[in-house]
Order: sequence, then structure tokens, then C-alpha cells
Amino acid sequence: MSDSPPGAVDLLGVLAYAELTAFLKLAEDAAALAPSLTDRAALSDLAVAEYGHFELLRDRLAALGQDPEAAMAPFVAPLDDWHAQTKPGDWLEALVKAYVGTGIAGDFYREAARQAEPETRKLVDEVLAEESRSEFAVERVRAALAENPKDAGRLALWARRLVGEALSQAHRLAATRPELALLLVAGGAVDGTSDAGQIGIGRLFSRLTEEHGKRMSALGLVPGP
Amino acid sequence: MSDSPPGAVDLLGVLAYAELTAFLKLAEDAAALAPSLTDRAALSDLAVAEYGHFELLRDRLAALGQDPEAAMAPFVAPLDDWHAQTKPGDWLEALVKAYVGTGIAGDFYREAARQAEPETRKLVDEVLAEESRSEFAVERVRAALAENPKDAGRLALWARRLVGEALSQAHRLAATRPELALLLVAGGAVDGTSDAGQIGIGRLFSRLTEEHGKRMSALGLVPGP
Repeated sequence: MSDSPPGAVDLLGVLAYAELTAFLKLAEDAAALAPSLTDRAALSDLAVAEYGHFELLRDRLAALGQDPEAAMAPFVAPLDDWHAQTKPGDWLEALVKAYVGTGIAGDFYREAARQAEPETRKLVDEVLAEESRSEFAVERVRAALAENPKDAGRLALWARRLVGEALSQAHRLAATRPELALLLVAGGAVDGTSDAGQIGIGRLFSRLTEEHGKRMSALGLVPGP
Repeated sequence: MSDSPPGAVDLLGVLAYAELTAFLKLAEDAAALAPSLTDRAALSDLAVAEYGHFELLRDRLAALGQDPEAAMAPFVAPLDDWHAQTKPGDWLEALVKAYVGTGIAGDFYREAARQAEPETRKLVDEVLAEESRSEFAVERVRAALAENPKDAGRLALWARRLVGEALSQAHRLAATRPELALLLVAGGAVDGTSDAGQIGIGRLFSRLTEEHGKRMSALGLVPGP
């Protein structure tokens, strides 16, 4: 990995574990919360796509001579914690999580990939191009809101919680994996004290907030403050 | 479906739901019981293969003008019950279940497919040809038994319970879906009273028992009485 920028293995590792665990959590939600077998199959389909991404990333790590298990290990706790804090209580929450969660993750990866080496960037782009599969969730949520508009309030709060918990875990990760954080803030210091780091983080957060707002609108939800 | 033998839609329906639910249960076991991320990925890989089979079967039902959800519906309760009765308590039990469960299911489908129309038979063969993926479970179980031979007793009992519960659910299904049962016993009556039905069922059970014995040996376990 001497020809890869610092943080590149971390990027592949966090992305790989995120995809593996997204697969398992989506399958769990499909089994527990889908109101019909058709819906169960639709969320399962999304889950299986995430597994496919995991395989690409794991194989890339192996091709770089890295142990995938070791590369993923530092990210198990923060990602598991995010899922534990955002366990959906019903089918609509599961759909919003599938769409918003995939979206937030995509935003982080896209930022990080900008700074990565070309091969990794290409792979991350490939993984992200597939994320439009979660669009089925948008249709279902919009249809449900058309029938029960009063669900909009609680789902908007739910989506805000998904982002809040994601930023909280990202903050925790940035402290322990400075090189990964460096990839995200594109060249600034990231200890939160230097001006360059602050500007980088500020930019990153406003990009994430902007993208999240678009997703909320797509779902028919008010983004909120 | 006027050109399909009675029971053909049932066969595709039970196989489709079995694969969908196997996918979800294997994913659940991978998330809950795998001792390492590598093991979690290996069982996930098996789960994803099951989902691929589900898709083939669902699409075949749709191509026959059948509603996949309706075709699967009669089989939800018996298959869910089987899984509820056979929830693995640890990783070794999960591996034995992945291998033995996939094997038992395969035996049933193989018998049923003999009598099905050529297109369905071809599809079932295609699905079954893939089942060798569960062989990874054999390697892990054998390695574990080489280290701790005393686990053999409880795992043999566990495997026997998997079969016992499967036969019990199959019996329940045969009573409610006589046309599917007919496919299984190859031309005999299946009400359990006529001689032809009894002979057919007797043959089926001895084939299942024989195949199960081979799988137990492969795992390094004593088949038991």
C-alpha cells in the first residue's frame, strides 16, 4: 500500500463493513417489518445489492494485499452503534432508513473518494452508481404519505435522527482515524482546531445537509431545521 | 396453467418461499452468530445465493401468469414454523442447519421435480445445482470437531431435530396440499390409507433418510437411529 494515500485502506474498510452490515440489517428489517411478501422481496433485493458491493470492496482490499477483516475491524463498533441507535420501529421507518441511510453513506463515500487513488475512486463510483435501487423506497413512502399525511411529522423526525446519529458516529470516527477524516475534508487539518480543518469540515457538513434536504423532499418530507 | 400438472404452481410456490426465507434466516444467523467478519461474509454469501434462487422461481411463477405472493402464501406458516423450531443456538448449529437444511430441502424438491413439467424441472435442477455452495459449512464443522470432538454428540442430536421438524412440517403440508404431495410420491394416492400412497411415502422417506445419512457422514457426525 506504499503507493496509496494514507486513509485509502480505511476508506475501503469502512465502506466494506458498511455494505456488509447494511446487507444484514436490511435483511433483518425485510424479515421483521415488511407487510407483504412482495415488499419483503423488494427490500431483500436492495439488501442483496449491498452484499454485491461488499464483495467488490473486499476483493479490492485483498488485491491490495490487505486483510479485509483487519481493514474492517476499526469500523465495526461505530457502524454497529449507528444501527443499534436507528432500529426501525415499523415498515415506513425501515423504508426511510433504507433510502436516507444509503444516501448519507453515499455522500460520505463520494467526498472521501475524491481524494482517493484512481482505482479506489473508480470502484467507489461503481458501488455508488447502483445506489439508485433504493428509489423503490421513495415510491412506497410517498404512496403511504398520500394515504396518511399525518405520518409525515414522525417520519421527518425519524430521518433527522438518522442523520444526527450518523454525524455523531462520523465525529467519533474522525477522532480515531484522522487519515480517513483527512480524505473527507480534502486537504485541511482535521483536529478541529486549525482553520483549514474547520473550513473543510464546515464544507463537508453543508454538502451533507444539502443532499439530505434533497432526499427529504424526494420522500415528501419537510427537511426541518 | 392448464398445461401444467396439478401441484406445479405449489411446487414453485413452496420452493420460492423456502428460498426467500432461507435467505433471511441465513442472514440473521450470519449477523447474530458468526465468530468473525470472514465467517459472517461466508454465510452471507450462501444467503445471497438463496435469494438468487428465489428470484428465478418468482420470475417463473410470473411468467406462468401466477401471482408469486398468492403461490407462496400457503407455505408461509409451515416454513416459518420450521425455522422457529430450529433456531440455531450457536455458530456450529447455524452451520449444520445451513448444510443439513439446504440438503433436506433439496431432496424434497428433487423428488417433486421428477414429476413436474420439463420447464419447471429444468429450473429446479438449476437451483439445486448451486446448493454445493453450502459445502463451506462442512469444512468449518469438520475443523471444529477435530478441535473439540465432544461437540459431535450435541450436533448429531441437533441435525436429527432438523430432520424431524422438517418431516413433521412436510406431513402437515401433505394433508393440506394433496396435489403437491402427489408430485412427491410419484403417482400414488397420498391420503395415507391406500397402498400405493403408503408405498410412495415409504420410498420417499427412505430416500430422504439415506441422503441425510450421507450428509451426517460428510459432517463427521454419526447419523443415529
